[in-house]
Amino acid sequence: MTGTDPFAVLDRIELRERVAAALQTFLNPDTTLLAPVGPEPTELLEAVRRFVLHGGKRIRPAFCFWGWRGAGGADCAAIVQAAASLELLHACALVHDDVMDASDLRRGRPAVHRDFAARHRDAVWRGTAETFGTAAAVLLGDLCLIWADVMLTTCELDDTALQRARPVYDEMRVELMAGQYLDLVEQSRGTGSLAAALRVARYKSAKYTIERPLHLGGTLAGARPELLDGYSRYGLPLGEAFQLRDDVLGVFGDPDLTGKPAGDDLREGKRTVLVAVALDRASPSQAALIERHLGDPGLADDGVAALQTVFEETGALAHAERLIDELLARALEALHRLPGTALDGEARDVLAELAVTVTARGR
Amino acid sequence: MTGTDPFAVLDRIELRERVAAALQTFLNPDTTLLAPVGPEPTELLEAVRRFVLHGGKRIRPAFCFWGWRGAGGADCAAIVQAAASLELLHACALVHDDVMDASDLRRGRPAVHRDFAARHRDAVWRGTAETFGTAAAVLLGDLCLIWADVMLTTCELDDTALQRARPVYDEMRVELMAGQYLDLVEQSRGTGSLAAALRVARYKSAKYTIERPLHLGGTLAGARPELLDGYSRYGLPLGEAFQLRDDVLGVFGDPDLTGKPAGDDLREGKRTVLVAVALDRASPSQAALIERHLGDPGLADDGVAALQTVFEETGALAHAERLIDELLARALEALHRLPGTALDGEARDVLAELAVTVTARGR
Repeated sequence: MTGTDPFAVLDRIELRERVAAALQTFLNPDTTLLAPVGPEPTELLEAVRRFVLHGGKRIRPAFCFWGWRGAGGADCAAIVQAAASLELLHACALVHDDVMDASDLRRGRPAVHRDFAARHRDAVWRGTAETFGTAAAVLLGDLCLIWADVMLTTCELDDTALQRARPVYDEMRVELMAGQYLDLVEQSRGTGSLAAALRVARYKSAKYTIERPLHLGGTLAGARPELLDGYSRYGLPLGEAFQLRDDVLGVFGDPDLTGKPAGDDLREGKRTVLVAVALDRASPSQAALIERHLGDPGLADDGVAALQTVFEETGALAHAERLIDELLARALEALHRLPGTALDGEARDVLAELAVTVTARGR
Repeated sequence: MTGTDPFAVLDRIELRERVAAALQTFLNPDTTLLAPVGPEPTELLEAVRRFVLHGGKRIRPAFCFWGWRGAGGADCAAIVQAAASLELLHACALVHDDVMDASDLRRGRPAVHRDFAARHRDAVWRGTAETFGTAAAVLLGDLCLIWADVMLTTCELDDTALQRARPVYDEMRVELMAGQYLDLVEQSRGTGSLAAALRVARYKSAKYTIERPLHLGGTLAGARPELLDGYSRYGLPLGEAFQLRDDVLGVFGDPDLTGKPAGDDLREGKRTVLVAVALDRASPSQAALIERHLGDPGLADDGVAALQTVFEETGALAHAERLIDELLARALEALHRLPGTALDGEARDVLAELAVTVTARGR
């Protein structure tokens, strides 16, 4: 850790590089079982490679890896492969999410469905390019969901460990999809209560990004229940803080850093905690402004700026920042309370740094 | 078997009823891991229940079950659960396929994305009903893909058996999605060669519907390689015959039996073997008629009838029927050649009857 790079902790023991190398090794026609099917589906494989190899902070693999180390597991290639498989699960979620939201950009590049629509257009094929792009992205996401599973179960950890971890993995996948549906329903209902926004954040992000990867790594290593409980006490508030930071960045973030246009969450009408707090505190004219602009797909820069001002003037932004600080403090406190006999020393240090990193303003 | 009901063999040992009961038991909030997430996602679960409990001939579970019995596995609840899980995998494929094709109907009811779009409209929610319907159907398909896996791995077969079968299961899932992509690309290219149509049929349907379910059941029971090879020699031609029958029904089928409007495959522009043969033998005016109508989303009844006439007059229909007969004969021949020491007697009889049933005209 250099002390100057805020993401250095994610690179500890070259983890990001090793995760990328594991994905690179796995994503070939043989291990993905595509070889016999012929040349066409390898276009999907190439697109997945571009998607997962260029970008991503590897946050979920990091929590999985350090959840394993914290439970006494030794550093080895097998756990890196298992941890890296979470990037494929995440790729499924993002690619399908971009289809559902009709997003144009992801990680600063065209979203997968747009990329395949462009290929259709270039080849001057039959039918509409949009239909082709959507269909290809749905199938590509399905393949990522399957490959995630294949990558996890073919890592060379022993079978008992893999069987022990399967229920955690299954819960994680179901929570992710169910959380996405909650989000969709909340966006459509547009009620915007704080309780609803917090429930979406919990299932769609908090558990899936931090608690479950920690549990997956921990369970693979045979962690005792007290450690898994400790991971929850640390991971749940931290996950909520992480999602809050994401909400703030979705409104105020720098497109160069987020890889998405500023205000995309506003155009999609996401019912975030930020929105819920702003609505709760808004004057009638501020509330009317939110209702008018939120979810408007054609929202321009001045509309985004007007909403930003409302989030600032209502104190919603300051409230979110305070909440992030409080949740982070709770996570760190839970970490400190875990007895040294339960949690390996290096993992403790790394988890403390990771907590600060994933909630940092410049993330 | 009554001798009058052509589907009686699918009901042998009440298999269809037991598959439905296994799905009914599995599809509850606890085993699907939805309980903690809250009430909303159970709407997805209810929709899956309606989808898999009302309809479906349970063809894939039948081949899985009899593949197990043929390898000497004893009839038990665990193998019925494992076999039934294939209906959830199939539900993922169908629900996502209907999104990709923008189909209105499935099994005589509104397709899942249309059903959720209607709920959105009834609730007078924000955003467009179509976007909501598509997003819900993508997530519902993802959940089915995950639940299929959960249902398979939580059946009470022993762990060694499940581990032995996992590579077969993974190949099957990847082939299914890759085959769907092949189909999509062929439809878009519109080249329509017979070789391409046969490759689509092989991956999208032949392997996934018959060979792989047999292998899954066989591998779970610890089948020897000679039996698995025999299953391939029987299952591959039979699967191609099954897909050919499907192609014929897609053009000439009775909507009351197929649950889809007549001519839907023509509107979608599917490049089937039937189309490839017709194009190969068509006069210039017949070829022009095919090119004009195939893939026209607004194709009316008279256009469907005109295409039907071309398939008849070119001899493509008769050729397809002959091909079905030949492939069926090859499958039955391969079955007869399997030594009695390799294949259990009752399974042999059932597989012979199943072959006739799944390729029958009135299917």
